[in-house]
Amino acid sequence: MEDLKLFGVWYSPFVCRVKCALQLKGLNHEYIEEDLSNKSDLLLQYNPVHKKIPILVHAGKPIVESLIILEYIDETWPDKYPLLSKDPYERSKARFWAKFLQDKESTFWSLVLVTEETKEKTVNEVIEVLRTLEEHGLGDKKFFGGDDIGFADLAIGIGIHWMKVIEELKGVKVFETCTLLQAWIERFNEVPAVKENLPGYNELVAHYKSRWG
Amino acid sequence: MEDLKLFGVWYSPFVCRVKCALQLKGLNHEYIEEDLSNKSDLLLQYNPVHKKIPILVHAGKPIVESLIILEYIDETWPDKYPLLSKDPYERSKARFWAKFLQDKESTFWSLVLVTEETKEKTVNEVIEVLRTLEEHGLGDKKFFGGDDIGFADLAIGIGIHWMKVIEELKGVKVFETCTLLQAWIERFNEVPAVKENLPGYNELVAHYKSRWG
Repeated sequence: MEDLKLFGVWYSPFVCRVKCALQLKGLNHEYIEEDLSNKSDLLLQYNPVHKKIPILVHAGKPIVESLIILEYIDETWPDKYPLLSKDPYERSKARFWAKFLQDKESTFWSLVLVTEETKEKTVNEVIEVLRTLEEHGLGDKKFFGGDDIGFADLAIGIGIHWMKVIEELKGVKVFETCTLLQAWIERFNEVPAVKENLPGYNELVAHYKSRWG
Repeated sequence: MEDLKLFGVWYSPFVCRVKCALQLKGLNHEYIEEDLSNKSDLLLQYNPVHKKIPILVHAGKPIVESLIILEYIDETWPDKYPLLSKDPYERSKARFWAKFLQDKESTFWSLVLVTEETKEKTVNEVIEVLRTLEEHGLGDKKFFGGDDIGFADLAIGIGIHWMKVIEELKGVKVFETCTLLQAWIERFNEVPAVKENLPGYNELVAHYKSRWG
């Protein structure tokens, strides 16, 4: 067994990305649930700059930032279920869409903080992001990377599960006009490595209700 | 000669990163200067999502986002001057520092927009970012990647050249207490591939004076 530890919290989409990638690679790991209101000494030691999770510790060496962890996993175990294509151009496209979503985190976050006054504008901004993902990124492909889920799917798909929680808590509708994206989410959620690692929808709603509701 | 075209503007740090990387790799390319107030049809066709430069077009295929372009160049021509180490852990550290700087762009940008009231707070925030780069990233190494410049140096060093322009235009001081970082900038600026591609300091000051001064 590989010497792999993952520090996280169960309700983080960034941690979930890493869990899915590890399972796709068939890598067992020890999982350590953190309490972010009382961070462990190890967390602070392994990620002194951001003091955030997820942290993957491989043979004592910490790797942080979920997308950087995904690249690390793919480069360290390249033969088992590649997350990125071998072709540099395909890799650049996967990285582009992963970064695209990352750059839009503040747009999604503004939905959490939405008020009656900002609702229409914010919802339209989120829909525009989702349509761009659909029209320019996904198109009529099965997954962003082609026939199987990969780097961009993990980057985008996990976040969208959390977006559905925000939709419910905020009483907004952002996905209903994105039919290609909705069909992709359903395919994505059925992949065993995703299905077995996504926190339950109801648990997430209950968890976030006190903060965002 | 490789079929390589680079679309950019001379005063963009993101374009400069790519120029330096191409020169380090010994790759000739055709450079196309854009007018951002009147973007070319090719720019809009090659980067329909962001409509931004830099765009590297290799054999007709567009790659966008400066750090993604750097990864593409490194993966497509791996044998000439590696920008990233072959070791996945070292790669993850280089990506971490590149992303760290990218995530702090808004902090640097706030220095451009500084007022007398926000000056002290903003300057302190920028200094904190620079100290983190110095203490946790550079340390006493010659370059971020070790003995030669690489991915993280290009990501950080070019931006810092522009920061010095902001320093002058805004009459602030952010670098003076960061002695290790200052010595690194001097080494970085002396590397031929950097020196020959960095726009002149005075030209940048003159260019930005009308916007930021």
